[in-house]
Amino acid sequence: MHIEVIATICEARSDEFLHKTVIVVDVLRATSTIITALMNGCKGVVPVETVIKAKELAREGDLLGGERYCKKIPGFDFGNSPLEYSREAVQGKRVILTTTNGTRGIQKATKADRVLAGALINAKAVAEAAIDLKRDTVIVCAGTQDVFSLEDGICAGLILDEIAAILGESQMMTNDFGLAMRGSYLEAKDRLLATLLACTNGKKMKKSGFLADVELCAKVNTTDCVPVLEHDQMVLYQR
Amino acid sequence: MHIEVIATICEARSDEFLHKTVIVVDVLRATSTIITALMNGCKGVVPVETVIKAKELAREGDLLGGERYCKKIPGFDFGNSPLEYSREAVQGKRVILTTTNGTRGIQKATKADRVLAGALINAKAVAEAAIDLKRDTVIVCAGTQDVFSLEDGICAGLILDEIAAILGESQMMTNDFGLAMRGSYLEAKDRLLATLLACTNGKKMKKSGFLADVELCAKVNTTDCVPVLEHDQMVLYQR
Repeated sequence: MHIEVIATICEARSDEFLHKTVIVVDVLRATSTIITALMNGCKGVVPVETVIKAKELAREGDLLGGERYCKKIPGFDFGNSPLEYSREAVQGKRVILTTTNGTRGIQKATKADRVLAGALINAKAVAEAAIDLKRDTVIVCAGTQDVFSLEDGICAGLILDEIAAILGESQMMTNDFGLAMRGSYLEAKDRLLATLLACTNGKKMKKSGFLADVELCAKVNTTDCVPVLEHDQMVLYQR
Repeated sequence: MHIEVIATICEARSDEFLHKTVIVVDVLRATSTIITALMNGCKGVVPVETVIKAKELAREGDLLGGERYCKKIPGFDFGNSPLEYSREAVQGKRVILTTTNGTRGIQKATKADRVLAGALINAKAVAEAAIDLKRDTVIVCAGTQDVFSLEDGICAGLILDEIAAILGESQMMTNDFGLAMRGSYLEAKDRLLATLLACTNGKKMKKSGFLADVELCAKVNTTDCVPVLEHDQMVLYQR
């Protein structure tokens, strides 16, 4: 199985996704939030690029979620903290979500055969889903404003590691960037929270009062839930 | 000291190099070759972008070196193997060098305050020189045809590690990509040759009969020689 890892959304060329499985990774926090919402019974998360589009799409009973530069958008029900997307808040509801990077990554990947959402919390499950789909796979690290983010790279490395553990080393082929990310993950695996708190986004989130979010997002394989894009919304992937 | 690591030449914006020290890294093989040539008494290495420019610049007594896609250029004295640049071959001579990636990286960095050449073989020495120059520093991984190359990333990680060892951890600040490269280096440090042979360029070079080059380029801190760009040529950096 061939898995290419891409450092940022802006490096991703959407034509290269044709006939492939794309895993979008935005650990802090968009994909961690989408996974958490679906895990808590949300019907579907609709990722959109702009605030205006989010408001246009919202129908009676929908929830609006999202952030710009880590801050909740005025008039929205939620920000982009996974802790807000509790069962009480989202069960049976649809969420329209717009974030600075992660939802853009999903939008850019729509030419892919299937688009999955990955994070540290569902790394093994998303690895299994990608194997199950039997396609060449691209892991897109969302990054931040077109700059590489360490937490996304480490998550890509973990997903590669999970795939290699399932298929065997010789069956997991990746590009040089993927090899580097896997090395970076292996070096950091015993102190992931500290590593996330030392990188640009982690420092920023801690400073903005979101330490609990970083703690949640730094946990590995806490859920089997894998979001997959069906038409315009992320829903639970079913084998 | 702030050290930014950039994944490929095409990501480097030359205006961002103003007033900074730039370390260009092309482990396989341009910077390893330039270091080896100067170590062996070569007067200076002139990096140029094109074959035509190399031929135009060559004066009586100069040597022409370079490659395109790993192969020696017809009519040139040498290819891009550091093993060719022996003391017998280069002492007292000037070399005009053109390679696919590394010399392009040096050309792109000319707006910097100083341009140094780094590789695994001189990592500690180039770290010391960068500290000595007391500027914000950018490590440019040359990559291959605008794609990230693992060996350059690992070398960047080693240079960061050397700087942290000299200045102390709290005095070495880097970007998320730098943190990832340092992790990747630390994970691979006890089997660097195997790691280089597992990445795209290493595999290609072994297949093309250049295993001895990879072996030479995978050795760490075998020389104190640091090339620095003076006007149009790389010469030995003197403190």
